[in-house]
Amino acid sequence: MTRFDVIGFDADDTLWHSEDSFTAVEQQYVDLLTPYTPDAADVRAALRVTERQHVPISGYGVKAFTLSMVECAVTVTQGAVPSSVIGDVVRLGMAMLTEPVRLLPGVPDVLSDLARDHRLVLITKGDLVHQWRKLDNSGITHHFAHIDVVMEKDEATYGRVLKDVDVAPERFCMVGNSVRSDVLPVLALGGHAVHIEYQYTWEHELVEHEEAVVTAASILDVPALVR
Amino acid sequence: MTRFDVIGFDADDTLWHSEDSFTAVEQQYVDLLTPYTPDAADVRAALRVTERQHVPISGYGVKAFTLSMVECAVTVTQGAVPSSVIGDVVRLGMAMLTEPVRLLPGVPDVLSDLARDHRLVLITKGDLVHQWRKLDNSGITHHFAHIDVVMEKDEATYGRVLKDVDVAPERFCMVGNSVRSDVLPVLALGGHAVHIEYQYTWEHELVEHEEAVVTAASILDVPALVR
Repeated sequence: MTRFDVIGFDADDTLWHSEDSFTAVEQQYVDLLTPYTPDAADVRAALRVTERQHVPISGYGVKAFTLSMVECAVTVTQGAVPSSVIGDVVRLGMAMLTEPVRLLPGVPDVLSDLARDHRLVLITKGDLVHQWRKLDNSGITHHFAHIDVVMEKDEATYGRVLKDVDVAPERFCMVGNSVRSDVLPVLALGGHAVHIEYQYTWEHELVEHEEAVVTAASILDVPALVR
Repeated sequence: MTRFDVIGFDADDTLWHSEDSFTAVEQQYVDLLTPYTPDAADVRAALRVTERQHVPISGYGVKAFTLSMVECAVTVTQGAVPSSVIGDVVRLGMAMLTEPVRLLPGVPDVLSDLARDHRLVLITKGDLVHQWRKLDNSGITHHFAHIDVVMEKDEATYGRVLKDVDVAPERFCMVGNSVRSDVLPVLALGGHAVHIEYQYTWEHELVEHEEAVVTAASILDVPALVR
């Protein structure tokens, strides 16, 4: 008998790369704006502030990020940025929406292995259209019995999803790269979680906590941890 | 016995106003850009083209619309629009995301009436975060047994939702203002639909069809039509 009936997976930075693309685009953005920005201005810090203001209104994902980049470009340059550069910024965002899915090493094998004796569910947040484009292009969706693109990964959301897939919290284990979104709310419900470290973490996902967290260096370690 | 077990409702322009807000913002957008646009340029037509190019990439909703407005502002003015005006355009979009929900006349009464002897489901497309903000503020979500924010309202989506809520197509009736999204795909599945006319229809939703469509002038006529 297995320890869990259902294993949940986050998608961005758990199954495929995502944050590294934000990081790369942000560097291009800084390079685009620097000629129009006062020496003392910190473009990255200004973008963080704009994002933080926008998240409650526009949510997560590339479109929200792109709108934050546009608004911040106007404010951080005090209106000195030419609109042609704003056009370039929008194109950076649109390109992110269509870039190929880059799976993390071992993902298809691990899913195939775990799907033999577990129901797998995918729980991700962000733009509906962008997440579904990545899912459809990933070649791994057939491993999942249920896929849910949610607005916020909090206790209420996990409670609803666990009810939908009909599993008790103690028979559920969530796997993801964000302690804040993939681990703590699941533990709070009485479920289990494995944190997989990823090379970048979006500042918004950083959180202080006292709970003991099971951590893996790679998804390849997950089968041994959940069996 | 009722004719249907489950009644599905669209949200935007069926339960609450939406398109009139896009129309009003578009007018403000044209007014903002006109001073920087060559006389012969048609800002509205250019925006339509940009939207049409963006929909497959960025999907539906206010964030996608706002990104289209920004990109079109740069191209239609040939870069002559000052970036401060682009900032105004982004603020127009952000304001749409937080504007109050304006229910259409009779909506709470009709839902309350129909929920007595039907299961009601809400099926809407658009931004997750924006649709949920409107739902949470609408005061009518308690009438719905199931709420689904979907990416595209096509046969595949309706087939999946009908399976999720466990209803046969012939026992399901969809109510909405878009013949393309709320009526034709449901009829194609063997289900039923009522088209409610709304004063504005987004060009993207216009469609030619030969199927006979049951049409109501207002949601107030729906209970009589479905019973």
